[in-house]
Amino acid sequence: MKAHLSILKIGGQLLAQAASLDKLLRSFTAFEGHKILVHGGGRRADELLRSLDIQPRMLHGRRITDAPTLEIVTMVYAGLINKSVVAQLQALGCPAIGLSGADADLIRAHQRIVQDIDYGYAGDIDYINTDRLRYLLDGNLVPVCCAITHDGKGQLLNTNADTIASRLAVALAPHYHVILQYCLEKPGVLADATDDSSVIARIDQTSYATLKADQVITDGMIPKLDNAFDGLQAGVAEVRIGNPESLSRGTATCLQLR
Amino acid sequence: MKAHLSILKIGGQLLAQAASLDKLLRSFTAFEGHKILVHGGGRRADELLRSLDIQPRMLHGRRITDAPTLEIVTMVYAGLINKSVVAQLQALGCPAIGLSGADADLIRAHQRIVQDIDYGYAGDIDYINTDRLRYLLDGNLVPVCCAITHDGKGQLLNTNADTIASRLAVALAPHYHVILQYCLEKPGVLADATDDSSVIARIDQTSYATLKADQVITDGMIPKLDNAFDGLQAGVAEVRIGNPESLSRGTATCLQLR
Repeated sequence: MKAHLSILKIGGQLLAQAASLDKLLRSFTAFEGHKILVHGGGRRADELLRSLDIQPRMLHGRRITDAPTLEIVTMVYAGLINKSVVAQLQALGCPAIGLSGADADLIRAHQRIVQDIDYGYAGDIDYINTDRLRYLLDGNLVPVCCAITHDGKGQLLNTNADTIASRLAVALAPHYHVILQYCLEKPGVLADATDDSSVIARIDQTSYATLKADQVITDGMIPKLDNAFDGLQAGVAEVRIGNPESLSRGTATCLQLR
Repeated sequence: MKAHLSILKIGGQLLAQAASLDKLLRSFTAFEGHKILVHGGGRRADELLRSLDIQPRMLHGRRITDAPTLEIVTMVYAGLINKSVVAQLQALGCPAIGLSGADADLIRAHQRIVQDIDYGYAGDIDYINTDRLRYLLDGNLVPVCCAITHDGKGQLLNTNADTIASRLAVALAPHYHVILQYCLEKPGVLADATDDSSVIARIDQTSYATLKADQVITDGMIPKLDNAFDGLQAGVAEVRIGNPESLSRGTATCLQLR
């Protein structure tokens, strides 16, 4: 039987709310088995960019990362947020180790090829170093991964944290029973977008097709769920979508193939 | 026979000079045996502080670290500089892993007790986690340590990089044949402060006493050398003091007990 591995992705909004973050980190620390935390930090980066008179630029939800912006996101993601979260986890007794994709050559990427839009120093993932991640996990360490990767030639790159979480989950699925959890603001995938009590407890491929056809699931949620089902197809055991409360209570939406 | 471990400390001035840094990182990559890099980054932190209209405050060569300053040094040391150096080392084929003292609970410290001066979030080291460091070194990883520690209760602290290097050297001396190298601007300890060709090749405890009595070694160099001899007394095999050129050529000053 494969050992359990939980991968939890937390976003920028949560990182700004001390009480919710503390609650989530306590719940994460209590997860049994191996675990990995993946975080973004866009809001804090935007604040620092504006303090330095640099205008944050986003397109289709992705950051346009010029050279000064790359320096700022590296400072905020890999420095301030990563180390603050690691120190908080250590205080809870969780043996966290904060990492970028450059550290131990964990996540190699290439600079996104310019088609219509030049995203600058944005990185698309080529390779996850599962041997090194397994060595860290075997040593009873808990990787805390920020949204910075590298190209193996000395260049750091800004990479979407959702993508890092799902690529880690897929790469590690041959070795572990992987549960991938996305922590958002809503308690789960909602049957009624205006009603937070309408969480859909479980979605499989068949019910997902129906929910899309009936337009219960629309717009912004579709790429997230498509991505989640891609992960499940590639061997991830389970994907959960919720907020700190629903993920710790076990009332978040659970996605499985069947 | 103990395995070799080289610990190299590099300072802020060097980090700002791309060509010298590249040369030194190449030389570091070529070191045989286990190795650890320790870096500061004060100059870059000062630049960012000034860009944000925060005046850097130093006293007796130590930074006064209030809460906003701690955020900035965490960003610059643990984020920008640490990850840039790690990415450069990876490009050279060196399996670097960038770490603060909070990561893997490697270096625990306490906030400096206020006597005459309140240094704010400055940390004095209590404990080095040699088991975890050895696990990383055994995994053929090369720790790159920045000047940030933690108190185990969730608080990050700013800790002098020279001190981190020497404390790591002493803590690891029971397990490795440790050579501690300090990379400065001068090619070594000079017999004539105005003549860079006057490097003293070798200093032992006896000659150190004579050099001090004759006032060849004075002022700023004395605490550094006292510190180095303390490390040697505590089991460090050798301390070298030089610049990128002299350290790679083997013409830096070498300190040994006898």
